[in-house]
Amino acid sequence: MKAAIFIGSDSDFDIAQGAVDIFKEFEIGFQLEVTSAHRSPERTENLIRDLEEKGTEVFIAVAGKAAHLAGMVAAHTQKPVIGVPVGSATLGGLDALLSTVQMPKGIPVACMGIGKSGAINAALLVVEILSLKDKSTAEKLSRYRQQMAENVRNASEKTKERI
Amino acid sequence: MKAAIFIGSDSDFDIAQGAVDIFKEFEIGFQLEVTSAHRSPERTENLIRDLEEKGTEVFIAVAGKAAHLAGMVAAHTQKPVIGVPVGSATLGGLDALLSTVQMPKGIPVACMGIGKSGAINAALLVVEILSLKDKSTAEKLSRYRQQMAENVRNASEKTKERI
Amino acid sequence: MKAAIFIGSDSDFDIAQGAVDIFKEFEIGFQLEVTSAHRSPERTENLIRDLEEKGTEVFIAVAGKAAHLAGMVAAHTQKPVIGVPVGSATLGGLDALLSTVQMPKGIPVACMGIGKSGAINAALLVVEILSLKDKSTAEKLSRYRQQMAENVRNASEKTKERI
Amino acid sequence: MKAAIFIGSDSDFDIAQGAVDIFKEFEIGFQLEVTSAHRSPERTENLIRDLEEKGTEVFIAVAGKAAHLAGMVAAHTQKPVIGVPVGSATLGGLDALLSTVQMPKGIPVACMGIGKSGAINAALLVVEILSLKDKSTAEKLSRYRQQMAENVRNASEKTKERI
Amino acid sequence: MKAAIFIGSDSDFDIAQGAVDIFKEFEIGFQLEVTSAHRSPERTENLIRDLEEKGTEVFIAVAGKAAHLAGMVAAHTQKPVIGVPVGSATLGGLDALLSTVQMPKGIPVACMGIGKSGAINAALLVVEILSLKDKSTAEKLSRYRQQMAENVRNASEKTKERI
Amino acid sequence: MKAAIFIGSDSDFDIAQGAVDIFKEFEIGFQLEVTSAHRSPERTENLIRDLEEKGTEVFIAVAGKAAHLAGMVAAHTQKPVIGVPVGSATLGGLDALLSTVQMPKGIPVACMGIGKSGAINAALLVVEILSLKDKSTAEKLSRYRQQMAENVRNASEKTKERI
Amino acid sequence: MKAAIFIGSDSDFDIAQGAVDIFKEFEIGFQLEVTSAHRSPERTENLIRDLEEKGTEVFIAVAGKAAHLAGMVAAHTQKPVIGVPVGSATLGGLDALLSTVQMPKGIPVACMGIGKSGAINAALLVVEILSLKDKSTAEKLSRYRQQMAENVRNASEKTKERI
Amino acid sequence: MKAAIFIGSDSDFDIAQGAVDIFKEFEIGFQLEVTSAHRSPERTENLIRDLEEKGTEVFIAVAGKAAHLAGMVAAHTQKPVIGVPVGSATLGGLDALLSTVQMPKGIPVACMGIGKSGAINAALLVVEILSLKDKSTAEKLSRYRQQMAENVRNASEKTKERI
Repeated sequence: MKAAIFIGSDSDFDIAQGAVDIFKEFEIGFQLEVTSAHRSPERTENLIRDLEEKGTEVFIAVAGKAAHLAGMVAAHTQKPVIGVPVGSATLGGLDALLSTVQMPKGIPVACMGIGKSGAINAALLVVEILSLKDKSTAEKLSRYRQQMAENVRNASEKTKERI
Repeated sequence: MKAAIFIGSDSDFDIAQGAVDIFKEFEIGFQLEVTSAHRSPERTENLIRDLEEKGTEVFIAVAGKAAHLAGMVAAHTQKPVIGVPVGSATLGGLDALLSTVQMPKGIPVACMGIGKSGAINAALLVVEILSLKDKSTAEKLSRYRQQMAENVRNASEKTKERI
Repeated sequence: MKAAIFIGSDSDFDIAQGAVDIFKEFEIGFQLEVTSAHRSPERTENLIRDLEEKGTEVFIAVAGKAAHLAGMVAAHTQKPVIGVPVGSATLGGLDALLSTVQMPKGIPVACMGIGKSGAINAALLVVEILSLKDKSTAEKLSRYRQQMAENVRNASEKTKERI
Repeated sequence: MKAAIFIGSDSDFDIAQGAVDIFKEFEIGFQLEVTSAHRSPERTENLIRDLEEKGTEVFIAVAGKAAHLAGMVAAHTQKPVIGVPVGSATLGGLDALLSTVQMPKGIPVACMGIGKSGAINAALLVVEILSLKDKSTAEKLSRYRQQMAENVRNASEKTKERI
Repeated sequence: MKAAIFIGSDSDFDIAQGAVDIFKEFEIGFQLEVTSAHRSPERTENLIRDLEEKGTEVFIAVAGKAAHLAGMVAAHTQKPVIGVPVGSATLGGLDALLSTVQMPKGIPVACMGIGKSGAINAALLVVEILSLKDKSTAEKLSRYRQQMAENVRNASEKTKERI
Repeated sequence: MKAAIFIGSDSDFDIAQGAVDIFKEFEIGFQLEVTSAHRSPERTENLIRDLEEKGTEVFIAVAGKAAHLAGMVAAHTQKPVIGVPVGSATLGGLDALLSTVQMPKGIPVACMGIGKSGAINAALLVVEILSLKDKSTAEKLSRYRQQMAENVRNASEKTKERI
Repeated sequence: MKAAIFIGSDSDFDIAQGAVDIFKEFEIGFQLEVTSAHRSPERTENLIRDLEEKGTEVFIAVAGKAAHLAGMVAAHTQKPVIGVPVGSATLGGLDALLSTVQMPKGIPVACMGIGKSGAINAALLVVEILSLKDKSTAEKLSRYRQQMAENVRNASEKTKERI
Repeated sequence: MKAAIFIGSDSDFDIAQGAVDIFKEFEIGFQLEVTSAHRSPERTENLIRDLEEKGTEVFIAVAGKAAHLAGMVAAHTQKPVIGVPVGSATLGGLDALLSTVQMPKGIPVACMGIGKSGAINAALLVVEILSLKDKSTAEKLSRYRQQMAENVRNASEKTKERI
């Protein structure tokens, strides 16, 4: 149970799926929980404590609007906390982004970009952090990166055919 | 001890002063505390519980940046919670405003405008709420309003002299 | 007739429905009126006076664009006024949000988040205010909150099955 | 008394001065009043009625934050209403701009740019409107415009010396 | 030919339709032209001159993105110029709004809200301006306003049935 | 091979198509490559070097979100670099626009508007630059411009029939 | 007279100075003129024509607020046009940026960053364009770039001493 | 040499000082370099390679405007990269924030809040990451956190005296 993924509402699961897929690909043990900073604050605090005891090393929090979830987790643990802002139909996620990134000094949150690619990157940052102590994860990450560069080259070839 | 004022940092006291002055003018008992959603979460939770026991009926939370203080208080009490966003040199308070006002459904925060006039209005909203059960407060508020209208008229006369 | 809901245009009814549902659930007497700060200012002033006489204790105003409705109501009553900004296809509700929340000192408006969840929260804030003098409403609210926390737990269980 | 200038607060007089100077230069009769949409709504309504009876043909409203003054005037008269948003230290006047310009259909407000140059332009728009019925005003405006173009040329000569 | 409507691109006609409908309802003679500040600057200048000679008293310019059309017309005439910003899928019309409203001192543009309701209001502002010299137009406008207030009342009755 | 078009992801090809079409119309030799500032930095550097050797005189970079592609190309060549920001569902392209245009002093990027019309304009700017040394391209551009003005006139005639 | 610099107001000269200094350093002949898209449109058109006849190959336009100057120049020439938005105390230059960059398809403007560093980059882009036909300019630019990289290294050494 | 701090310009040193102070307090070995993504790209790439060889485990990049520095570092290393946006007088740091946080999927950057408190938090996130393998650092961090909470309490006592 290296990583935890908290999502503020079950409607944000499609976003969180981006992180789930990365953890599966890299075989990182994780636990996903729907929990809200506002609607279930006690549950959130209990989950943080339980997950720390189970050995969780990094927390990811996915939330929209006045997205306090990442900040709240960061207030209750000194493990690294990564925030993923969720976009919305009204302000496009600017509200969630600013609520996540503009943390006061003393309690850091590592903020990712808005939406699913932010969730993918959150999990990849976990992989980077875990790679600092685990060589085999570092090597997987290295191959993943090479594959990405390779994919760009292939996409280029295919795109040229469309001209 | 009808009202509580929480400020996220002592540097926000000048903003909160706006609420303090109104409470003194209307003789509303209040308690002011510096407490942070992120740096002192336990203290904040304890204060909410203590203040509720002392009979606090409305909470005001004054905070800047990723302003989670009002939302956190609202998550732990079902008394009305009023949020006052504090402006900053960078994003002008848009971060604090969105972090305070864009609450998810279920847990309301009554958001005021940015800065000191927001704090003044927060206290006046408390006065309005307390007036629902207390006639003498309602009458004071009525006179306060009449005085404001009168002040506008006087300001107009003085301003005309500057033309 | 504890609460009034004003909507600036009948096209905003879907948003206001969020408040209507809460009032029905909590059995709070309310009156809903379509009325515009700009197209029917006299009607709006008359409605405020009539509703105050009928014992209305809190006003909710739902409006979009240059949303002046909440501010106008607040100018004519000293009962608490709650504003709900309505989003739009162009500026996403930022216009309505700023027009509602940035009130000058002296006349507070309790601003909620943009859209339907803002309307739900507006009604819940009314419930919180009425709970200050009515124990049975306070108890209903307490159960409502527990149910919300319970719903989060259930949503979590269901979401885990999707991994 | 062709034109009226309403300012929401005496602290906005420096902005309104831009319009005052133009009216003096073009010898347009005007009346300036400090009056607030929120703090003195009755006074504002009475002033609109009185000024219409005195023959006021165009209204200018100068206000900041949730700037409802122009919209409120427009709701109570069918004379042209010009709005001048006032900037602030926090949101830079974006709040006042959107509150003034995003009027719902049916009640137009002619919105100018933020601040003193907006007030100057508000008065010049009045001059343009009055020029439609008054040839001598139209001729003054024509000379004013030629002088502006001339000033640009002179400024250019002087600026070149700084290279 | 009291009024001219310029639209920057034929794709903006649906927006301009709002002004066309008002002019038909109020029997105001008008001429509509597609012309661009950037793609057809000479045509635009020629149209302004021709339309002024035909007696045009007010110009409306409807344009999106870096919306220079209203400003360009204002630079070439001293008749009142009304700008209508057109929204877009990317920045929601904020670009067109700021390009239209933030005119430098000396050359006013009367800016309306974004989109079709802005176009409707542009035409209504023309009606207000023409009403200053034409009593029968003023009376039509007065009836139009009463009808709007009446429509609000009717919409209210119908909406109540949906509760 | 006068011009190069880099796109950050194959999903941006529809935007880049705007530039492709212009280059075909003006018979400007070009090479299009999918390459990422972040996922394939070495490939991007190699492409810049290769294309410079092949005589590329102007680079166009099309990218979204934290759009670093144009800036990265500009850091590695002293040929003119044109950036085209791509919009997104969340922030509407404001992120890509600011990431492209706000370059620090010393390394210019010529930023176009967001999206496909920005890509069209990027290619037209290339045409303008190449016209400085190539008369026949300049003449084609001159005819293209006249055609645009002609198209506006025709669109105007057709639009008038819709009134 | 390779390059022209237009500034919309003499108060923008401090910004334009950034371009002037670069042109002096690279010994590029240039002519600077204060001219306004709105206050002196004829003068601006005449200047464009005169400067094209004198052999001007690139135009720079520096302007604030609803910054139409670059777009207007681009509408009247098919030489490359570079726009430099000027910031302001209210909207920080967002208005000028969007007015400059969001050009409709067909008429490109090469937009730089806001303020003096934008003006420096505008002149450097001119240098890049002129380098395409002039080897000695290209070599100077190459040395300028090497010097910049060298300066970074030196700044690094000095900064380390402050730790 | 556990950590590296890159700053895009020596003028950003005051911001970076926040991270320097934390590293000194926690006795984390670090190396600070001024280096630019745009003005010195080769130097930046060389520094990344050298620092990785020296055992650097986390990179911090501090930059303003179109802040590409963090993204560029992340493209060249698979160690965790933390970005600190620097505010400016024009757009208040929104440009740097979006350029840093909105990374495309595949290459994460951990974005902090704007300015000095962002730099402090960047260093604290490094401390959190290093704590995962180093118990004594974890204990220092735990004491640091307790001290912060204690400081809030003390600030509260002092602030109460100002009422």
